[in-house]
Amino acid sequence: MIILDGKITSQKILESLKQEITGKNLQINLDIVLVGDDPASLKYVELKQKVADSIGIGGQIHKLSKDSTTNQVISLINKLNDDNSVTGLMVQLPLPTPIDTNKVLFSIKPSKDADGLNPINLALLFQKEKIGIPSATSLGIMKLLEEYKIDISGKNAVIIGRSPDVSLPLFAQLMAKDCTVTICHSYTQNLSQITSQADILISAIGKPKFLDAEFVKKNAVVIDVGYATDPETGKTSGDFNFEAIKEKVNYITPVPGGVGPMTVASLLFNTVEISKRI
Amino acid sequence: MIILDGKITSQKILESLKQEITGKNLQINLDIVLVGDDPASLKYVELKQKVADSIGIGGQIHKLSKDSTTNQVISLINKLNDDNSVTGLMVQLPLPTPIDTNKVLFSIKPSKDADGLNPINLALLFQKEKIGIPSATSLGIMKLLEEYKIDISGKNAVIIGRSPDVSLPLFAQLMAKDCTVTICHSYTQNLSQITSQADILISAIGKPKFLDAEFVKKNAVVIDVGYATDPETGKTSGDFNFEAIKEKVNYITPVPGGVGPMTVASLLFNTVEISKRI
Repeated sequence: MIILDGKITSQKILESLKQEITGKNLQINLDIVLVGDDPASLKYVELKQKVADSIGIGGQIHKLSKDSTTNQVISLINKLNDDNSVTGLMVQLPLPTPIDTNKVLFSIKPSKDADGLNPINLALLFQKEKIGIPSATSLGIMKLLEEYKIDISGKNAVIIGRSPDVSLPLFAQLMAKDCTVTICHSYTQNLSQITSQADILISAIGKPKFLDAEFVKKNAVVIDVGYATDPETGKTSGDFNFEAIKEKVNYITPVPGGVGPMTVASLLFNTVEISKRI
Repeated sequence: MIILDGKITSQKILESLKQEITGKNLQINLDIVLVGDDPASLKYVELKQKVADSIGIGGQIHKLSKDSTTNQVISLINKLNDDNSVTGLMVQLPLPTPIDTNKVLFSIKPSKDADGLNPINLALLFQKEKIGIPSATSLGIMKLLEEYKIDISGKNAVIIGRSPDVSLPLFAQLMAKDCTVTICHSYTQNLSQITSQADILISAIGKPKFLDAEFVKKNAVVIDVGYATDPETGKTSGDFNFEAIKEKVNYITPVPGGVGPMTVASLLFNTVEISKRI
């Protein structure tokens, strides 16, 4: 079994971005919109800004109160869309419940959408248009598969979870690389029967250790997007029971240290790409 | 085995649309853009206009020469987008090769996109936004499943073919109805192994009689979007070998008389929906 190491791989990507930014003296700003005072979101946003800063990307965090309306969030985004000093921008999800997340994501200028969450970018991905910006998580997973030279063409890929921010762009990207792709979800009947035929199995449901050996094909590639606190141990855990499947699979992402750091690096990769298109 | 009769079902839809149009005295125009002189496309466009006319929908066919540029097509579409007398519009596909089909489809005003082929409508479908207009073929298939009261929630649906005009919107619509959905294509390994597990099997590849009994699960629902001339018989044939599978499956669409008439009825259904939103 080989660990798909997101820490090392993301460091390589960040190092290469840093060299490019320094070498070409690129002036890049990634602005982040944070609504509400969820401590986990704040921590995550600060981490993103810190990593951005470490490779020479600037930008501001814009905090809005948790009582903000959809229109207030969109009006801030419109300002950033029009601000030439802002290279890319992103809105930290989840947004407080009364806010219409779809409307907010649609309001991000597609060409500045560093996190790749405007549905127009999803449509562009499905059209295989090069200007389509993939979601950071989806891109991070593709870059991890690429780094470890995993051959995916024609392979059977199964994604558990149907979130528009991870599963749908990943579906588009895997299909563009000629995978046969299936999306499973909470209504799927005989889940383990389907997942145990997957050459590449990705889960993004946030249920700690939900998936054990019976769900996994021998020699599979396992990508764990889950990230939640295991109520039994109090520790962060992915959707897969790592200990139970590690001897059965060929490749697996750890949690933490797998998809997480790849997502941050890919957000910044997207931002640098955007800066080169302008 | 029960035939999913697209002729009868589409007639019911058309009859109901006609009553609504007459009853409410709706003034509706569907304009169609045809580029080039492909006889099959011309015939299909004339059929659409004839059926539209029969239920009280007007509209013009706009013919452009096969040498038209992408910009010339888009400039016609922009005119129709802005013309208040045009309720909905569509571009007959395929377009002659030098024309950038994606660009043309993106130029159709999403709210007037009667054929549901602007990728923005695909993105809206994936977001489960009610304003998303499904592609006519995809909607036709969903309406056929609905008419025959086929329970699809949680079922395993497999689509063969990855075209953006049929397979992707159908994927979105089936997933929204809680199907587990797989897309297979020319790179898929072990195709029959995957398709023979499908409760609902849809094919849209245009290879006459390509799929026989080994590809089909017992008691499956089979939807045949294929429509091509069988070189052996010279007759129109679907992707499935109808005779070879008819005793094995529970439901099947004939070709012709299955998905085809449903597509035309759904195009007009979309047009009437658009008229009610204005």
